[in-house]
Amino acid sequence: MTQWVYSFGSGKSDGDAGMKNLLGGKGANLAEMASLGLPVPPGFTITTEVCTYFYSHDKAYPESLMSDAMAALAAIESQVGTRFGDRENPLLLSVRSGARVSMPGMMDTVLNLGLNDVTVQGLAVKSGDERFAWDSYRRFIQMYGDVVLEVPHHDFEEILEQYKRKHNLANDTDISAVGWKGIVADYKDLVLRELGRPFPQDPQEQLWDAIGAVFKSWMTPRAVTYRKIHSIPEDWGTAVNVQAMVFGNMGDDCATGVAFTRDPSNGENYFYGEYLVNAQGEDVVAGIRTPQPLSLAARQKDNSPLPSMEEVMPEVYGQLCDVRARLEAHYKDMQDIEFTVQQGKLYMLQTRTGKRTAAAALRIAVDMVNEKLITPDEAVLRIDASALDQLLHPMLDPNVERDVVGKGLPASPGAASGIAVFTADEAEERAKDGSDVILVRIETSPEDIHGMNAARGILTTRGGMTSHAAVVARGMGRPCVAGAGTIQIDMKRRVMIAGGVEIAEGDVITIDGTKGEVMEGRVPTLQPKLSGDFQTVMGWADAARRMKVRANAETPTDAKVARDFGAEGIGLCRTEHMFFDPHRIQKVREMIFADTEGARRKALNSLLPAQRDDFTELFRIMKGLPVTIRLLDPPLHEFLPHEDADIESFAKAAGLTVDRVHRRLNELKEANPMLGHRGCRLGITYPEIYEMQAVAIFEAALKVDVIPEIMVPLITTKAELSKLRKMVDEVAARIYTTKAGVKLPYIVGTMIELPRAALMAHEIAEEAAFFSFGTNDLTQTTLGMSRDDAGSFLPFYVEKGIFAKDPFVSLDQDGVGQLIDMACVRGREARSDLKLGICGEHGGDPDSIDFCERTGLDYVSCSAFRVPIARLAAAQASLRAKKKSAIKAAA
Amino acid sequence: MTQWVYSFGSGKSDGDAGMKNLLGGKGANLAEMASLGLPVPPGFTITTEVCTYFYSHDKAYPESLMSDAMAALAAIESQVGTRFGDRENPLLLSVRSGARVSMPGMMDTVLNLGLNDVTVQGLAVKSGDERFAWDSYRRFIQMYGDVVLEVPHHDFEEILEQYKRKHNLANDTDISAVGWKGIVADYKDLVLRELGRPFPQDPQEQLWDAIGAVFKSWMTPRAVTYRKIHSIPEDWGTAVNVQAMVFGNMGDDCATGVAFTRDPSNGENYFYGEYLVNAQGEDVVAGIRTPQPLSLAARQKDNSPLPSMEEVMPEVYGQLCDVRARLEAHYKDMQDIEFTVQQGKLYMLQTRTGKRTAAAALRIAVDMVNEKLITPDEAVLRIDASALDQLLHPMLDPNVERDVVGKGLPASPGAASGIAVFTADEAEERAKDGSDVILVRIETSPEDIHGMNAARGILTTRGGMTSHAAVVARGMGRPCVAGAGTIQIDMKRRVMIAGGVEIAEGDVITIDGTKGEVMEGRVPTLQPKLSGDFQTVMGWADAARRMKVRANAETPTDAKVARDFGAEGIGLCRTEHMFFDPHRIQKVREMIFADTEGARRKALNSLLPAQRDDFTELFRIMKGLPVTIRLLDPPLHEFLPHEDADIESFAKAAGLTVDRVHRRLNELKEANPMLGHRGCRLGITYPEIYEMQAVAIFEAALKVDVIPEIMVPLITTKAELSKLRKMVDEVAARIYTTKAGVKLPYIVGTMIELPRAALMAHEIAEEAAFFSFGTNDLTQTTLGMSRDDAGSFLPFYVEKGIFAKDPFVSLDQDGVGQLIDMACVRGREARSDLKLGICGEHGGDPDSIDFCERTGLDYVSCSAFRVPIARLAAAQASLRAKKKSAIKAAA
Repeated sequence: MTQWVYSFGSGKSDGDAGMKNLLGGKGANLAEMASLGLPVPPGFTITTEVCTYFYSHDKAYPESLMSDAMAALAAIESQVGTRFGDRENPLLLSVRSGARVSMPGMMDTVLNLGLNDVTVQGLAVKSGDERFAWDSYRRFIQMYGDVVLEVPHHDFEEILEQYKRKHNLANDTDISAVGWKGIVADYKDLVLRELGRPFPQDPQEQLWDAIGAVFKSWMTPRAVTYRKIHSIPEDWGTAVNVQAMVFGNMGDDCATGVAFTRDPSNGENYFYGEYLVNAQGEDVVAGIRTPQPLSLAARQKDNSPLPSMEEVMPEVYGQLCDVRARLEAHYKDMQDIEFTVQQGKLYMLQTRTGKRTAAAALRIAVDMVNEKLITPDEAVLRIDASALDQLLHPMLDPNVERDVVGKGLPASPGAASGIAVFTADEAEERAKDGSDVILVRIETSPEDIHGMNAARGILTTRGGMTSHAAVVARGMGRPCVAGAGTIQIDMKRRVMIAGGVEIAEGDVITIDGTKGEVMEGRVPTLQPKLSGDFQTVMGWADAARRMKVRANAETPTDAKVARDFGAEGIGLCRTEHMFFDPHRIQKVREMIFADTEGARRKALNSLLPAQRDDFTELFRIMKGLPVTIRLLDPPLHEFLPHEDADIESFAKAAGLTVDRVHRRLNELKEANPMLGHRGCRLGITYPEIYEMQAVAIFEAALKVDVIPEIMVPLITTKAELSKLRKMVDEVAARIYTTKAGVKLPYIVGTMIELPRAALMAHEIAEEAAFFSFGTNDLTQTTLGMSRDDAGSFLPFYVEKGIFAKDPFVSLDQDGVGQLIDMACVRGREARSDLKLGICGEHGGDPDSIDFCERTGLDYVSCSAFRVPIARLAAAQASLRAKKKSAIKAAA
Repeated sequence: MTQWVYSFGSGKSDGDAGMKNLLGGKGANLAEMASLGLPVPPGFTITTEVCTYFYSHDKAYPESLMSDAMAALAAIESQVGTRFGDRENPLLLSVRSGARVSMPGMMDTVLNLGLNDVTVQGLAVKSGDERFAWDSYRRFIQMYGDVVLEVPHHDFEEILEQYKRKHNLANDTDISAVGWKGIVADYKDLVLRELGRPFPQDPQEQLWDAIGAVFKSWMTPRAVTYRKIHSIPEDWGTAVNVQAMVFGNMGDDCATGVAFTRDPSNGENYFYGEYLVNAQGEDVVAGIRTPQPLSLAARQKDNSPLPSMEEVMPEVYGQLCDVRARLEAHYKDMQDIEFTVQQGKLYMLQTRTGKRTAAAALRIAVDMVNEKLITPDEAVLRIDASALDQLLHPMLDPNVERDVVGKGLPASPGAASGIAVFTADEAEERAKDGSDVILVRIETSPEDIHGMNAARGILTTRGGMTSHAAVVARGMGRPCVAGAGTIQIDMKRRVMIAGGVEIAEGDVITIDGTKGEVMEGRVPTLQPKLSGDFQTVMGWADAARRMKVRANAETPTDAKVARDFGAEGIGLCRTEHMFFDPHRIQKVREMIFADTEGARRKALNSLLPAQRDDFTELFRIMKGLPVTIRLLDPPLHEFLPHEDADIESFAKAAGLTVDRVHRRLNELKEANPMLGHRGCRLGITYPEIYEMQAVAIFEAALKVDVIPEIMVPLITTKAELSKLRKMVDEVAARIYTTKAGVKLPYIVGTMIELPRAALMAHEIAEEAAFFSFGTNDLTQTTLGMSRDDAGSFLPFYVEKGIFAKDPFVSLDQDGVGQLIDMACVRGREARSDLKLGICGEHGGDPDSIDFCERTGLDYVSCSAFRVPIARLAAAQASLRAKKKSAIKAAA
């Protein structure tokens, strides 16, 4: 029989931290903490399998769920010594979601469950605090009303606001027990009015409807959007955690807080956190009250006027420090924890691996290796390779004077400029039109996710380092300045007033998420300097990886960046980019318009010196490393003018009639250029083009010590490659004899970017010294999907889970992967020393790199800025492969 | 050691008829005939391997060739009793090409080789005919000069014409020995002038240069063109046959002729041929003198004034009839023979399987089965399935009065109308522009091949049934009227005068190749009635084949033709064709312009009745048979107006602004529509479109007894098919319940037309009851080659042998074939009753059908007119497969 319910508490648990898939992250870690003997309020977890069951059985539950849950509830009662629904000593519960991975703020929670008109009185008596009891009840009605009954949140707020206005009270804390009683009555009236039935008084009904509401919240649009952005499969489902309530809001010996065992923004090994006295957890996260620092050191560091927990409740703080130490020793990773202090007693409500910036991840990993908590290989495996991206993007130039108009918290590092916009929708729309936007909000909510994703950066005027905006921005790798309280936003006029300056929607601003600064206008940026931690981790990664990492680069700038980032050669130099140079394009066009081979050769000859110089420079930058040069690939019409004015000026310069130009344009027009007269098909029909390129390559190679790897694109059949390889060999023989009398090494290979090439790899390998998988085109042809046109349906496909991921971002391992695998096996059978690599954009995607490792490729090649990501991902792939083969060997 | 030279003659030969690949067709059959004891002048064959060697060794010969050939030459000398180069009794030789398959007139021949200023005197003395000797010498100089020395043919003709004008002679036969001597002197002067050296006198030099010239003629542009048209690989090469000369022009007891053992145009079992007294073979083929009938019966049949061979030389005629009988009994097939009679003695110069019209092929096959020469299975295997095409095309309506303006020989059956053009280049150009053209020539030559291929039909005013025009037209399946002597062509004015009517280039004419008639203007055509022989052979084919044959059809007309031609259902009904109906396209466009699902549904609902009626009619025609309906496939922009006027009128009718229409057109524009938002991607994003189609299908199916097979196009992944199958199932359940309360059978399957679908066939098969291979798109994606755009390089690829065949005509079995094979195996593993078929245009191509048989498909589907071809090809494939497995079983 399937176990649907797992209990935890009092030093023992049914589950453990390894059961995240079943219990969700929260549930698994609560169980683990309870087993460790940490003070966890007892509770139970309803598994994610129940969620799956729920959605596949028309929202019904497994038969035994109810009785299992009741047994678990009884266990809570016996541990806490209260009874659920008891009029004198009522047990109150929290009901929270908990998916495999954290989806902050995405799903629903109900607290104080079990209160009704009767038990509230028991709570008042037992706590000796009538005000607390009625405040708890109204909080419950409000939360339950919103989440379970779907009564609009703001209708409750409205009642509260009216009451405060009427009685001239500034804060919720000013409301008395009598006041809360009246508000509770008004809340209940509201529910009756809205629903036509009274607020449910039966605790069992409350419990089961709350559980159902949590399961249903898995499918809210915001949760769906979040999963889409973070590639979380829909069928994972969420667990539900039902747990005895503890209260941080029963008085001044109560508190609630969140903390990171190390600083999540820079990784510094110090206890970083925030807490509020006499508050419930939600108050910290919501950013409504400004939280206080945890330690005295932190208070001093931030120059905070608010007293730290260390000062206010030193004993509990000491217990918390112990917990911190035990958790790090146990999990061997930085933890993100939630705690509540009820009447001087500490309770742990959550622990999980803490999200962190890439810089923090590097520092923590390096520190933990030094602290002998983990090995270098473990450190390498722990860092999210994709997240390194954050470190590799431009930062603000420190030497440029900044016109800072506002300051806030440095909530997510990096800098960005863009036009200010004030709603998520606007952000998305303007970004679609190609604008860089900065989303400016008072505070963000899960409803803003799509706008945050579309924005280059996020600025809020309220909230702390653990506010929604801060957490989400760090996860997305967007720079964020949070809680910039001096800035005012006027939503009606759509302006922000910052430092006395009025900035309208559409005006450009710059934010520095590393420093927490806001500037008017655009501030110039600089390439980031990479930290010593980065170099240390990269060193470990390089020691661990098997595959080489090369870069896709053709400009000297890109090539230099690539080499600085540790590229071990160029895997793809796209020679056509050199043809687009404004000084050359006229010649290229004249070549295309040539009627005879002779005229074509003449035009090509005039391009030769420039092309040779390109290669010479590139070879110099990459001296000693391999450089793979792809011969001309795009269809010729890409080089032609298309605007009337361009056509006229080209015609004039070339001495042609406009009519003639139009005729040629028409001749070259293609229905499906992606599948047209391009790649080696050009080399076959106009061999003189490739010949010129080969001459340029070999003449350049005579000057610099590199091994040119000449790559023929779009091979369909061996015969094409035989013909072109022969041509290249002849050119090499000619150049090396006439110019130098020496023979320098070079190799000729091909891209595998058509399904047929993969299928015929055994034949093609006979002519190729290397294969480089052009996975962009291979994906397009294998899936029959044009990258340029997929926008009309691909997002929908990903959203609906028809594709787990965008196959142009992360390799379709099931389909395209089969062809790559096949080509590797067949190619190597025909030629055991065949060199194998990938040069599609997937070469910089960690999941795809893992596939490349498993498939036995020799190298990956990616854009210059992704080289460090690829180095790390390749190392991780190597380590995983080693682990796997070790497990296999052991079995 | 490789044997480069094979001798034949005197009842024994080194080779035989089975060695065509090595000896060429002519050489192999000369060897075979010699072995049979038939009177073959002795000779030897230099193998096709020498040709291959020649081209791969910079036109050099294998080392031992010379000595081997000299030994073989000595054997000829000893058999004939003359010596090569002997001044008194010289051996003369013919040097002829001979490839694996006949390439009529494509390559070069030299006759009378061995003559020089000395041996010509010996020949004169020995033959007792000085005029013959010098005529032979001048023929040799002329032929050798043209073929080997490359002195223009017309320069020799000019000398001859001048001589005749000067001496006022009408015919060559009027020239005396003295006259020929003078002409020979002039010819030799011409050669000296043109080449700067005298005409070669050394017989050995003559021989080896002639052999080289024959090998070189393998690569002449016309030979290359011919091979391209007939898909003959370049690397086959030609053999060279060196043979003792016999002379049909030594007097009135000499003759030369060509014959078919049965009538090649209709297959009738009678000895069909032509001969000329006192002539060399070339005279018959060239069509300069009108040849005489072979038999008295033929003379009477054709009402010829010329005496038949049976009358003129009854004894030799009797010998020839014996030879005919022996050859048919031996080869068990109709033979095409060449013979020469020298001074009353018959010599056989060639036999080969005779080319024939499709009608003749059927009749001969049926007759030979009746004559117990072959079995029905052999009969089925013998017929060129592609050639049936000739029979399946329209013929002239016999009930329409014909305005016959000229008559000629019925050289190739069928009828065609088109504009008259007078050069091959013009024919090609006008055909490219989309005109139907009839190529009208005095006589055709190998230089005209491209124009003949481009033309709908061919008309010549000179030449017989075995003239170049007639032979080539039959091979190409083009109707041809040959030797229409009453028609005059004025090339200067570009007109033809026929029956007193002047027809200019560009005027429409009609030819009837079955009757040999030429009409002014266009004559209406009728579907052909298929002969009893056709039905007989089809019956045998149907008995022999395993695979079903279906048709691709969506119009009632096509469906009826298909059923008449024996289609066993519809394999592909393209529903979009129904959308293009002018009465519906406005609704379709409004649907595309709808902003909401509701508006789309409204437009679709108004299309529903018409779509339902389409299916009802189609189902009625195909009653009792399966009908596969493909849901909407093309991208929506294909349905939109693109011309300004259309856009305006559509906008007006739809109540939209022109601007709005342009905007939508822009939105829907795709860079690569072939890889864009089409196929099931439409069904996924706009499910209401497919839903309407499903409703129409099921409502129609309620009225007629068919099993609808609903085919979802462009599947990439199983999830697409799951979703859409579910939708179809829901519609079926709804329709069948609400409308009838019954459940009718239907199945849902998919096209496999993307590489990924083939690779994931094991998963997709879980949702599909059938796979239909859409090999058009599968070829495009697997090869990364757009059919619409390949015109700029694909012909070049085929010409250069990079592709053996156009992969859009004949399936790329190496590449695409692998994917099909894989999909079949994986699909069947997942679902053992998976139905497998093909519905790309390859479904009508015999080679591709053979592949389908080997791969185990259940059916092929092709265009209606190709159904009989497919039936026959499927039978042949079955028989070949059986033979193969029998051989395997025996081994």
